[in-house]
Amino acid sequence: MTTTNRQIHLASRPDGEASSANFRLVEAPAPEPASLAVGQVLVRHHYLSLDPYMRGRMNDAKSYAVPQKLGAVMGGGTVGEVLASRHPGYQPGDKVVGMGGWQEYAVVDAAQPGALRKVDTTHVPLSAYLGAVGMPGVTAWYGLMKICAPVPGASIAVSAASGAVGSVVGQLARAKGCRAVGIAGGPEKCAYVVDELGFDACIDYKAHADPKSLYQALADATPDGIDGYFENVGGAVLDAALARMNAFGRIAMCGMISGYDGAPIPLAHPALILQSRLRVEGFIVSEHMEVWGEALGELAGMVASGRLKYRESVAQGLESAPDAFIGLLKGRNFGKQLVKLI
Amino acid sequence: MTTTNRQIHLASRPDGEASSANFRLVEAPAPEPASLAVGQVLVRHHYLSLDPYMRGRMNDAKSYAVPQKLGAVMGGGTVGEVLASRHPGYQPGDKVVGMGGWQEYAVVDAAQPGALRKVDTTHVPLSAYLGAVGMPGVTAWYGLMKICAPVPGASIAVSAASGAVGSVVGQLARAKGCRAVGIAGGPEKCAYVVDELGFDACIDYKAHADPKSLYQALADATPDGIDGYFENVGGAVLDAALARMNAFGRIAMCGMISGYDGAPIPLAHPALILQSRLRVEGFIVSEHMEVWGEALGELAGMVASGRLKYRESVAQGLESAPDAFIGLLKGRNFGKQLVKLI
Repeated sequence: MTTTNRQIHLASRPDGEASSANFRLVEAPAPEPASLAVGQVLVRHHYLSLDPYMRGRMNDAKSYAVPQKLGAVMGGGTVGEVLASRHPGYQPGDKVVGMGGWQEYAVVDAAQPGALRKVDTTHVPLSAYLGAVGMPGVTAWYGLMKICAPVPGASIAVSAASGAVGSVVGQLARAKGCRAVGIAGGPEKCAYVVDELGFDACIDYKAHADPKSLYQALADATPDGIDGYFENVGGAVLDAALARMNAFGRIAMCGMISGYDGAPIPLAHPALILQSRLRVEGFIVSEHMEVWGEALGELAGMVASGRLKYRESVAQGLESAPDAFIGLLKGRNFGKQLVKLI
Repeated sequence: MTTTNRQIHLASRPDGEASSANFRLVEAPAPEPASLAVGQVLVRHHYLSLDPYMRGRMNDAKSYAVPQKLGAVMGGGTVGEVLASRHPGYQPGDKVVGMGGWQEYAVVDAAQPGALRKVDTTHVPLSAYLGAVGMPGVTAWYGLMKICAPVPGASIAVSAASGAVGSVVGQLARAKGCRAVGIAGGPEKCAYVVDELGFDACIDYKAHADPKSLYQALADATPDGIDGYFENVGGAVLDAALARMNAFGRIAMCGMISGYDGAPIPLAHPALILQSRLRVEGFIVSEHMEVWGEALGELAGMVASGRLKYRESVAQGLESAPDAFIGLLKGRNFGKQLVKLI
């Protein structure tokens, strides 16, 4: 009996908002252990990671992300278990993290640098390697430590604060002796950010449709201004944060999810970059591999010791991935969005 | 007979565009040498510098520039000659640069750090200490060298390219082995930038009212993209430059003159900062005094040897200062705007 490998392909590119109609569920035969070439590893995926950057790859536009090919398996981070291996570094039963894509099984050329990494699940749950101890965690670490470069006592703010990246930014900032203020959507997320994650304050941007109201709420939460801002959303939230920046503040531009689906959202007052002598820097964590070792080490230690908390939204089954992804783009997830495949 | 010290005061704050009606010519008695206190120096101004930053100071808004007081002499850089001195470092006849303001004479507390600096006019004309070998020159030097940080072969672009700052940016970039592309208003300025200053190309933004046309012209002039951009104007020009930036490019935000008079001009595509992983940094040269010695030394050497060229727009007489300043804000000047006071 041949096992089935269910896959999600990109069926069409979005015209405006992405929808589940852009995806197609495809059934392929699962790779056979006997068919592995030397150096290859067969992995069964336990979790698939859904991340905002995937929306950019669905377009055919020039962007930092190489466009996702039409009619091919959607790319994405995965954790799973080795079923069979023709690479000496991997044995059946090993837990691994890789870029297996939106499918249940993958054959990986393990000799390729960065293609597969064995992970220890003694103190860190497997799924965390897609979140706080994975790409989102390192993203938070890089933007905070290398761009915002906070000193103890500094005021750090972060948008999408309950998300996979934002939640790590604020907790790391607190661990560095900073004041951490989050911006999130809805009272439940804000309560979680303050009560569970230990941020000093959190603004509910959904309660402030008017830019002046949003600015005032942020001003109340950041009485000493903002020294470092970590941006995940863009739009009105970025406008408000920019206006609260202290002189010589730093802004790490990590994501602009509010503008991914439609027309670009302008920045209302770019002259503030000059007036407040800010440094605004965009980055992609995969271009800074030199920090991954240090960052993952620190993040794993914090998770293992309970000092770094995280929440996961887990959708069940590969077929649920498209809807879960659309929900992520709309902020319906709460914490790291995963799809459980077993 | 008492000599008259003519002064220009700020009479009112602009509501929208600045106009000459915001200024008032006032006649005061010139300070008497006999009235100098210990440490004071009496300077007769030869030239007054007019600079875009003065527009910001006319507002009462929170900005990096302390607001100009109503009913007081407009602040501004000046060069002149010492008439009398009770400071041992200054003798009558010494040529000096300072912040004497929009008036014909000033008494300066020379002991105050940075208040007055003696200059050598053997190889560098006195007026150049307000331009290429003064604050505008150091501004160009700082933004190019410390923010754009160009390497030989890099593509550097600068707006207001025929102006006091922009002209130095491009010539310095060429001296560092870079390709220099200017953006300026009108065919005469563009021809000057290329033919006299030696830039590789110059775009006339006035010939491209449509953003797509402006972008295409800039694209034609920067076939390899832009690695470092020095911004003096903001608005549509910044939008076009942002779209031409190469990955990991740097933008030095020095001025946004296009938005000084009216409503803020939004930035159309802030997501490009992330997509191209740019560093965008605002700065004010007076906050980086540590570079002035090195920068002025290099700039003076280049002017003295003829490798750094500049042009001056010289208005005659203090009474012409308001109109000359309004003209500067509208781009009517050609090169460094000065007012000759003798």
